[in-house]
Amino acid sequence: MMYDLIIIGGGPAGITAGIYTARQKLNILLITKAFAGQISRKAVAIENYPGFKSISGLDLIRKFENHLKKQKIEIKLDTVRKIKKYGADFAVLTSSKKQYHAKSVIIASGADPRPLEVPGEKKYIGKGVSYCVACDGPLFSGKEVIVIGGGNSGFEAAISLSNYVKKVYILESGSKIRADEINQKQAQKTGRVEVVTSARIKQIKGKNFVESVVYEDRQAKKTKVLNVGGVFVEIGSQPANSFVGGLVDFNKKDEIIVDHQTGETKTKGLFAAGDVDNLSFKQIVIAAGEGAKAALAVSTYLQSK
Amino acid sequence: MMYDLIIIGGGPAGITAGIYTARQKLNILLITKAFAGQISRKAVAIENYPGFKSISGLDLIRKFENHLKKQKIEIKLDTVRKIKKYGADFAVLTSSKKQYHAKSVIIASGADPRPLEVPGEKKYIGKGVSYCVACDGPLFSGKEVIVIGGGNSGFEAAISLSNYVKKVYILESGSKIRADEINQKQAQKTGRVEVVTSARIKQIKGKNFVESVVYEDRQAKKTKVLNVGGVFVEIGSQPANSFVGGLVDFNKKDEIIVDHQTGETKTKGLFAAGDVDNLSFKQIVIAAGEGAKAALAVSTYLQSK
Repeated sequence: MMYDLIIIGGGPAGITAGIYTARQKLNILLITKAFAGQISRKAVAIENYPGFKSISGLDLIRKFENHLKKQKIEIKLDTVRKIKKYGADFAVLTSSKKQYHAKSVIIASGADPRPLEVPGEKKYIGKGVSYCVACDGPLFSGKEVIVIGGGNSGFEAAISLSNYVKKVYILESGSKIRADEINQKQAQKTGRVEVVTSARIKQIKGKNFVESVVYEDRQAKKTKVLNVGGVFVEIGSQPANSFVGGLVDFNKKDEIIVDHQTGETKTKGLFAAGDVDNLSFKQIVIAAGEGAKAALAVSTYLQSK
Repeated sequence: MMYDLIIIGGGPAGITAGIYTARQKLNILLITKAFAGQISRKAVAIENYPGFKSISGLDLIRKFENHLKKQKIEIKLDTVRKIKKYGADFAVLTSSKKQYHAKSVIIASGADPRPLEVPGEKKYIGKGVSYCVACDGPLFSGKEVIVIGGGNSGFEAAISLSNYVKKVYILESGSKIRADEINQKQAQKTGRVEVVTSARIKQIKGKNFVESVVYEDRQAKKTKVLNVGGVFVEIGSQPANSFVGGLVDFNKKDEIIVDHQTGETKTKGLFAAGDVDNLSFKQIVIAAGEGAKAALAVSTYLQSK
């Protein structure tokens, strides 16, 4: 069976691409690990997706998912391992050892949280180290925790955590805070958030569970320790594109380089949209717009074949 | 008074830019003729804005408008006549002879319906000639009407009109129909839509009101007449940018050329987003994404000043 299009990813970009292409009566397969994307990890309500004044990440992604499922589209919950090119067409291989064929592919696999890469981090994943406040926050009720990263997502994580925990430290490696003023003020208002700048994380320690974090105070040039029961890592994300092989070019951030008019990569018929591509600003509505763009470009591409 | 930013336009791009920049605590003025944009002229329900399975254009734009008005933002209902540059800043002049000053400007003035430019068209505007089925369709109840343009918007207009009128002719100047298959089938199902291809409009005639349309059958090379009570023009749109002067470059379609990463024009601090810019695909969700992009780029620009 040859699909017109395979869409990889079930976040805003992939779902929007699915809605658009299904309406063109194309024969489409969408493959995703889950319907989620970065949205479902959002710690606070989303207030900047136009049309919804304030909505939780999970509620918004459910609305997207239901919108998609109203269309005629085939969906497989699976993980893509490899994309290969056969002549003008593509083969997509998955973890469950399935192989699917299509005339075109949209990569909308989004981004994964960027790890710290310090000793102890991997060991304590699920034992105090988390990349998702929305998923794990309530488990830390009454404890002291650290959020690593002083950008907007770090502050949003801390604000959300302040509803459960006794105290939140935000550790930022730079000497200045990068979060919006609105987030800084809100964090201050909770009375439970303490910001530590110039803090470079060196190690996460514990027994069965996280017990402390060792960091270098870069200004005082001293090693310091904070005793905490949890560590939330909020230092950005990295594009989920390890399966693409040599079919695309990457920029320095490992993002797939696309033509911004169409979302097309250097390989004809292979498109990318959303957080996986090299558009600078990563936002839900921008990713959705990118998905629509790639979908319309796919229609044009298929007609020209 | 010097604003941080003036946003021109109250469609999806302008509103999204407003939501985003207001959240950055910038001091913003949004100037628009009305909260509408192309959306409010949509003849059929919108089914491709992610999150809303099916919603009327008016309902969607009201949701956008309410979302914007929840933010701290100043709004003036006025028409922009001119943008001028003073040093690094901008002056924006309006129809009501007001002048506003800002450090940056986002042009999100969208597009207006493209006129036919045939004899009789201007004379009968409001007397049988319309560019908006959603606004004027019900006035033609029981009559025979013509829709000019065989693209998606022409077909959508005809499908919507078939609820009121006795008969709709779709006149397309090309020899082939360009609308999606889904729209063509739906038009056929109404039993009231007749498609005429290779029809070049020559004149609109009448007395007090439209009575007939004269066209050339380009295949038969004959002049033909259709007696109808209404003409709906659906031949695309043209960017609304006559006020920009020499501060930007235009492409062949009169669209403002922008950097697709940021929405910035050739003038520092002057941005454009949505249907007015040179992104190929014109869609609500794409325009909204462009508005978000320009808003984030404005923040970066202002910080760098």
